[in-house]
Amino acid sequence: MNRPIYIISLLICIATGYLMAENTTKPNLMPWPRSVTLTGNNYTITKDFSFALKGPASQRLNDYSARFLRRLAGRTGLFLVQKYVSPDSVIANPVLTATYDSIAPLSISMNESYTLSVKASGIQLHAVSDIGIMRGLETLLQLFTAVNKEFIFTGAEISDFPRFTWRGLMIDCSRHFMPVSVLKRNIDGMAAVKLNVFHWHLTDDQGFRVECKSFPALHEKGSDGNYFTHEQVREVIAYANARGIRVVPEFDIPGHTTSWVVSFPEFASAPGPYQIERKWGVFNPTLNPVNEDLYVFFDKFFAEMRELFNDAYIHIGGDENNGKQWNNNQQIKDFITANNLKDNHGLQTWFSKRIQQLLVKHNFIMMGWDEILHPDLPKNIVVHSWRGMKYLENAAKQGYMTVLSNGYYIDLCYHASTHYLVDPAPDSLNLSPAEQKNILGGEATMWAELITPETIDSRIWPRTAAIAERFWSAKEIRDVNDMYKRLLPVSLRLEELGLLHYANRDMMMRRVTNGQPTDALSLLVGILEPIKGYTRHHEKQSFITISPYTRLADICAPESDFGREFAYTVEKYLSGNLQAAAELPRMLAAFEEIPDILALQAEQAPMLNEILPAADNMKALAKLLHQFMHDKKAPAEAKDIIEKARKPVAETTPAILESMEKLLNLTR
Amino acid sequence: MNRPIYIISLLICIATGYLMAENTTKPNLMPWPRSVTLTGNNYTITKDFSFALKGPASQRLNDYSARFLRRLAGRTGLFLVQKYVSPDSVIANPVLTATYDSIAPLSISMNESYTLSVKASGIQLHAVSDIGIMRGLETLLQLFTAVNKEFIFTGAEISDFPRFTWRGLMIDCSRHFMPVSVLKRNIDGMAAVKLNVFHWHLTDDQGFRVECKSFPALHEKGSDGNYFTHEQVREVIAYANARGIRVVPEFDIPGHTTSWVVSFPEFASAPGPYQIERKWGVFNPTLNPVNEDLYVFFDKFFAEMRELFNDAYIHIGGDENNGKQWNNNQQIKDFITANNLKDNHGLQTWFSKRIQQLLVKHNFIMMGWDEILHPDLPKNIVVHSWRGMKYLENAAKQGYMTVLSNGYYIDLCYHASTHYLVDPAPDSLNLSPAEQKNILGGEATMWAELITPETIDSRIWPRTAAIAERFWSAKEIRDVNDMYKRLLPVSLRLEELGLLHYANRDMMMRRVTNGQPTDALSLLVGILEPIKGYTRHHEKQSFITISPYTRLADICAPESDFGREFAYTVEKYLSGNLQAAAELPRMLAAFEEIPDILALQAEQAPMLNEILPAADNMKALAKLLHQFMHDKKAPAEAKDIIEKARKPVAETTPAILESMEKLLNLTR
Repeated sequence: MNRPIYIISLLICIATGYLMAENTTKPNLMPWPRSVTLTGNNYTITKDFSFALKGPASQRLNDYSARFLRRLAGRTGLFLVQKYVSPDSVIANPVLTATYDSIAPLSISMNESYTLSVKASGIQLHAVSDIGIMRGLETLLQLFTAVNKEFIFTGAEISDFPRFTWRGLMIDCSRHFMPVSVLKRNIDGMAAVKLNVFHWHLTDDQGFRVECKSFPALHEKGSDGNYFTHEQVREVIAYANARGIRVVPEFDIPGHTTSWVVSFPEFASAPGPYQIERKWGVFNPTLNPVNEDLYVFFDKFFAEMRELFNDAYIHIGGDENNGKQWNNNQQIKDFITANNLKDNHGLQTWFSKRIQQLLVKHNFIMMGWDEILHPDLPKNIVVHSWRGMKYLENAAKQGYMTVLSNGYYIDLCYHASTHYLVDPAPDSLNLSPAEQKNILGGEATMWAELITPETIDSRIWPRTAAIAERFWSAKEIRDVNDMYKRLLPVSLRLEELGLLHYANRDMMMRRVTNGQPTDALSLLVGILEPIKGYTRHHEKQSFITISPYTRLADICAPESDFGREFAYTVEKYLSGNLQAAAELPRMLAAFEEIPDILALQAEQAPMLNEILPAADNMKALAKLLHQFMHDKKAPAEAKDIIEKARKPVAETTPAILESMEKLLNLTR
Repeated sequence: MNRPIYIISLLICIATGYLMAENTTKPNLMPWPRSVTLTGNNYTITKDFSFALKGPASQRLNDYSARFLRRLAGRTGLFLVQKYVSPDSVIANPVLTATYDSIAPLSISMNESYTLSVKASGIQLHAVSDIGIMRGLETLLQLFTAVNKEFIFTGAEISDFPRFTWRGLMIDCSRHFMPVSVLKRNIDGMAAVKLNVFHWHLTDDQGFRVECKSFPALHEKGSDGNYFTHEQVREVIAYANARGIRVVPEFDIPGHTTSWVVSFPEFASAPGPYQIERKWGVFNPTLNPVNEDLYVFFDKFFAEMRELFNDAYIHIGGDENNGKQWNNNQQIKDFITANNLKDNHGLQTWFSKRIQQLLVKHNFIMMGWDEILHPDLPKNIVVHSWRGMKYLENAAKQGYMTVLSNGYYIDLCYHASTHYLVDPAPDSLNLSPAEQKNILGGEATMWAELITPETIDSRIWPRTAAIAERFWSAKEIRDVNDMYKRLLPVSLRLEELGLLHYANRDMMMRRVTNGQPTDALSLLVGILEPIKGYTRHHEKQSFITISPYTRLADICAPESDFGREFAYTVEKYLSGNLQAAAELPRMLAAFEEIPDILALQAEQAPMLNEILPAADNMKALAKLLHQFMHDKKAPAEAKDIIEKARKPVAETTPAILESMEKLLNLTR
């Protein structure tokens, strides 16, 4: 094995998303704690590591602590002597002592703060609540590293608490159904980065995903058999709660309700019959607020959901009512006039109030997307801003509690840095300190049009870890380069929780090559990104629920690590770094060979055919780079090459185009 | 990218378990059907592929057929026009027509035969039952391949039926709990290779894994909270049944019952209290057959299990009763004497009869491990041979139905070929044709001492596909080389079902290297195998339930594909093949570099430390090979080098030692 091979191997590793752990003293903590002092006084881990809990009996913390030991054993291969953890066990001279005062009820006011002291002589973790201990244990696991052939916890004094109380991840289980196992592993991922709200988008046009015993037709006719039973709902809630995570269900009404009116066409605002929607977009079926039977129905429905869900909050959607059915229904138009409701928005507010009254009756606090915002609604609801920061600002100003998701739409495949720099309470907002307090936090939203259980992990992770930092850490923590340094090591550790963001990418490549080697494809996949925003829908109009989500754009991570490495190297080069001058051409050299390899493989792997132009583009870019580095000036055709590469191929583009333009000093 | 790099890349691919799809005309069918004629009349797959069912309404077949379309779409990236399949839909000129006469009740007499005709003009699938259609659809998916940039189903005329009616996989969910998601993906794998019995080992010393509503203490105190609820049991059964797979539960009694007597010490044959067992082995706790309350208990218990499980058969274990508690219990000894039962075996038979009578009452047919075999038992039970072929022979001769697992213990990490060549009804048995018919088939047994949800897939697959062929295909199909040619492509396709036998190996390597590149480790992992049989327990005495199963021996596949490639190449070389002479030294060349790379990485990845001697051994073997190829004779130290490499390192050995000895003409 000669040296160049190993370099290429390393290149592959970068391209497929993992990097050699950085040998710095700064630990890979994410979210970054409120206060961190690194002492150099590291604790060395041996099989005799021991762990004592001191506090009131908390089964969930005992279990969390046992899992902490398993993860530690898994990472080290150490046959830890201690098997279980509980305040009942007497541990002589424990290495780790976790002390807490109380069992926190799960709520927006739960205390998640902790302090952590890691010294060579032992580890002290203190918290007000058992959930604070959980947060601290995750920090401790992020202090885990290895130096000089030994496993250590990095010596540190940490004091920590969250900036926002509402730190959520929404998973859409309607557009594509996500089995319990998918939710569980992602809930584990959430806990690892200190998120605390799982927002469960359970119904939409494409599927009604929860068993409803009062009206079984809802799940029986509205789900293709893909729904969560009551027991499964309870299982997921218990799983989340045991990790200090609340579960807020969403039932999106009055729009986005095709899957409801499949079984209850009489509740729609236009005559049925209806079928489960298979396409993507905004659809007409909308509940009819004028039908009084609807409130009898919802009274019973929410009564059942109150029994099933245990959080104070419930999300009623309220977004994207396109108004078409309402506009065409004379009874509804008359009702608007008769009740002086002005327009559809007025009617929706009237509807939201009716629903809100029912929710109050059933002891739920109402949350909804920002369309529900209207001064007529009582102040104890939560407005979920998805359309823009101004809705957040308006809500907060009007005295509503509010949560931000605009800027955190992870389905759109933007870079982690984009989301990272969106602040839920930026100084730019015109809010008094009291009004600012109405901002509870934010939520990353994993809409599921273009994802499946196979790809969801790679759309959530690792970018959501950066968002989690935004929600937890101090406002001032916003150094993008520093974030990225920590992001990859944190991401790799998420694999121990069963998350498949790297593993499934490799599997999907093996499927595409039809069992042939994936080295060449892997390099290409590592440098491409799916096109952003909603553009995939325009490239390929025919996406529906059952389309194959197994193609190049599904395999590529939303963000290319290689692209970022390339950008760094270009920056270094432009600032006169000689090493970068040597490195740059090497970074793309392999791409000159890739089209031939893939073309050969495509004979037996036709899924590669649509990818070949992307390989050609990369070859052209590699040659362009080579020539530029040789001539020190951009050749005449440079612009054309870059513009050609900018055109999506199989819904992807290379992640190096901006860097190339910068390097070649081309302006668009 | 120059040529040698690509060769090395290929080497990595071989080492990590996947090979370039062979460009032969012989399709990768496994199990090999009863009759196959390849016609060359291939069907070319386009997005207009269409599929009609003709037969009585079968929801399970509609669902199976929809999944067939999804898998086809996933493999091809084609946006298939047809969404769903049902006999109700009118499909004009369908490409695939599947015709069946009946809905098969799931039983040992269900008809699984089918005929399949693939032509350029269309595909005809015929079966007696809907389950026959499922089997045929899997065959069709194995005829899927690509030639000349197009996806095809290979033109063929196939007629097929199983040799044995009982083709099982047992999964032990007691030693390590396996969540529903693990079972489901493995049930999908079973269906892909036409296995039809999921034997669910639900209780053992280390855990009582099923909710028992009659006696909740059983699962509450006996499972650490890791048990299947009734709903989950029903979910797994429905999932399996929908794939034409029966589910036979096992409740192992009277031995292996520590987890039972944790809550019911009065049922043990010695005074309690008892705790859930954490270690591996055969333990003393054994039910007390003399306690009449036990049969009252079991009457109620089996009544509940009859409601829960839907198969005609139930497995009552009966193995490894070490007799210690019985020998030390005077009441039991007196009972044996008083009832003229001779010895413990006599008492166990007496117990089995009592249990069998209860099972008859609850409409169950009893199955048990071969210790239960005794002429006093009625002839309508099933004897499950695990200790040896003679027990199978004895049972069949005495008129008992019997199933073979001896030879199919996949937990012992033997090669696929070893299991493949074990025939459940070899000619060597002294059985009449009528007696031979008592042999129902066989079961691969996945005992779970040394596996976790992370590693179970790599222990089951792909070797179980070879065993599945043994159970389904004609006795004469036993060409090991031919089996191996088909095994890897079939194995790769299993990934589409969510099986993680390759993906988790890569993940585990990333954990071991602590995020550093895994190229070097991957080569080493690809050439090593975990030591066989029960030897791992002797190397590392401290294995218990919560030990880390994340180390080298857990990562290595039970069978090294590289080792087999090496053996083939040695054979070719020894028969004078010149290409092999050039290839051989190249195959190991990379290993000369690996110790240095891993030693460097070990600084930050201490889990590599225990692996380094294995890398050193491989380097020595690579040098030895190099020298031999140069000198054409074995150097003096050859034997020592091989013997040194034979000593387990971190419970692994290289898979090339026999080939090296052969090559060097060394005899042990």
